[in-house]
Amino acid sequence: MKSVAFINSKFIKFNEAKIHIEDRGLQFADSVYEVIAVVNKSLLDLRFHLKRLRYSLKELEIKYKFTENQLSKIFKKLIEKNSVINGIVYLQITRGVQSREHAYKNNLIPTVIIYTKKKKFNLPNKNFKGVKVITHEDYRWARKDIKTTNLLPNILAEYKAYKKKAYSAILIKNNKITEGVHSNIWIVKNNTIKTHPSNTEILKGVTRSALILIIKKLNLKFFENSFTKNQLFDADEVFLTSSGSFVTPIIKIDSQLINNGKIGKVTFLLAKSYFKAF
Amino acid sequence: MKSVAFINSKFIKFNEAKIHIEDRGLQFADSVYEVIAVVNKSLLDLRFHLKRLRYSLKELEIKYKFTENQLSKIFKKLIEKNSVINGIVYLQITRGVQSREHAYKNNLIPTVIIYTKKKKFNLPNKNFKGVKVITHEDYRWARKDIKTTNLLPNILAEYKAYKKKAYSAILIKNNKITEGVHSNIWIVKNNTIKTHPSNTEILKGVTRSALILIIKKLNLKFFENSFTKNQLFDADEVFLTSSGSFVTPIIKIDSQLINNGKIGKVTFLLAKSYFKAF
Repeated sequence: MKSVAFINSKFIKFNEAKIHIEDRGLQFADSVYEVIAVVNKSLLDLRFHLKRLRYSLKELEIKYKFTENQLSKIFKKLIEKNSVINGIVYLQITRGVQSREHAYKNNLIPTVIIYTKKKKFNLPNKNFKGVKVITHEDYRWARKDIKTTNLLPNILAEYKAYKKKAYSAILIKNNKITEGVHSNIWIVKNNTIKTHPSNTEILKGVTRSALILIIKKLNLKFFENSFTKNQLFDADEVFLTSSGSFVTPIIKIDSQLINNGKIGKVTFLLAKSYFKAF
Repeated sequence: MKSVAFINSKFIKFNEAKIHIEDRGLQFADSVYEVIAVVNKSLLDLRFHLKRLRYSLKELEIKYKFTENQLSKIFKKLIEKNSVINGIVYLQITRGVQSREHAYKNNLIPTVIIYTKKKKFNLPNKNFKGVKVITHEDYRWARKDIKTTNLLPNILAEYKAYKKKAYSAILIKNNKITEGVHSNIWIVKNNTIKTHPSNTEILKGVTRSALILIIKKLNLKFFENSFTKNQLFDADEVFLTSSGSFVTPIIKIDSQLINNGKIGKVTFLLAKSYFKAF
């Protein structure tokens, strides 16, 4: 299965892929990551992901230099070695290893972790599925715009969803919907599409960016506006976007059905349009 | 130096002490920790630390079972093997290894990491030093009462202090002083001592708890009250407490001297009283 990983400069057996206990990624969540979808052996939206990676590294002043070419070569080798047809590439860059203290040194060598996983995607065909989600308070730190592994509040919210047999959790801060635990959240009301503006309150999703381009091409009404919990429940359609699940319809939130539990027309159109685009 | 670490059930060479790349501590900051001072080969306030460890584990539902006896045996062996006279024991428990997904499984085997470091302490004798700190916005998540490795905002604030040659950073939320990056903050005004109440906004420090008992014994005026940035700068004395630095005077904040840059009387009394207590 997922038999080979890439650590620092080497391909090694996945089971033996380890990092030191004083790696700052482990001790301080001092690291950034990306998850890139692989569809039919191709990397999806690679350029968007690497652009965001550069942003995350810059914001944290982690000094990891790379070119698109270097990384995509490693990704492709892993995809081949691990026989991935559909799945994801996981990439994590930590600040490196340092004798434990909060302040970091400037001369650390970042730790590079890359591996793949196989995955079956939910695609907009006759088996296309809508999901149930829950709502949860947004307990995260102030810089949601950086894709870091400071993810403890995310996993606690997600576990609550899991216990309620829901797909994921939608996060709410001061009565505004920010985003999902690992997705952006969108509503459709009277054929107008809305999602939270990209600021420090959300992660600017790669699929979000790609979908905005598609929405504009389709000439649909769209606003980057935040919306309340009431507006969420009152929406005609709700969906989420993420690099691992593309456009996914939400048909139930907490105990309330959305669009009578059916996949909405706009959602289906966008899911199909996004799928066609790759 | 620090040549041996304890990982899961084994003592191994520190340099070879590693954990798997899918450890949730590394991927999600899904772990808790404690730092316990070692003074003259003795573990300081061990019972307080293990009580807090149980609290952190319970709040995150990490199923790691231990007895004080088991852990203190390992700590003592490490102290001996690594010839630690004065220093710290670092203990980290992660939820364990799981194929990456946000929601955690209930049957994971927690990863146990324990090692020691030598350290010279700042003690209340003729060489007792006051420190400079900076103020910084408190960007952390909602559950500061749990001692987790979700520490990215802490290290970013601490790095800013480091760049300004300061010892650490004091965190401010909505104009209230919460605590330091790795310490609790106290002020003295007109012989009245104040520190932020122990709620979800701060970590209930072990030295904080021990010092409150001492303050009560000494019959000093004390309130668990939050205070503003103005009150901080207007204080007669300011000090911090932490397991790694006990009672440490703060004599400068940002560019302003506190108590004319001298260690205050109450601070010195408390530092000495705490030191005598162990």
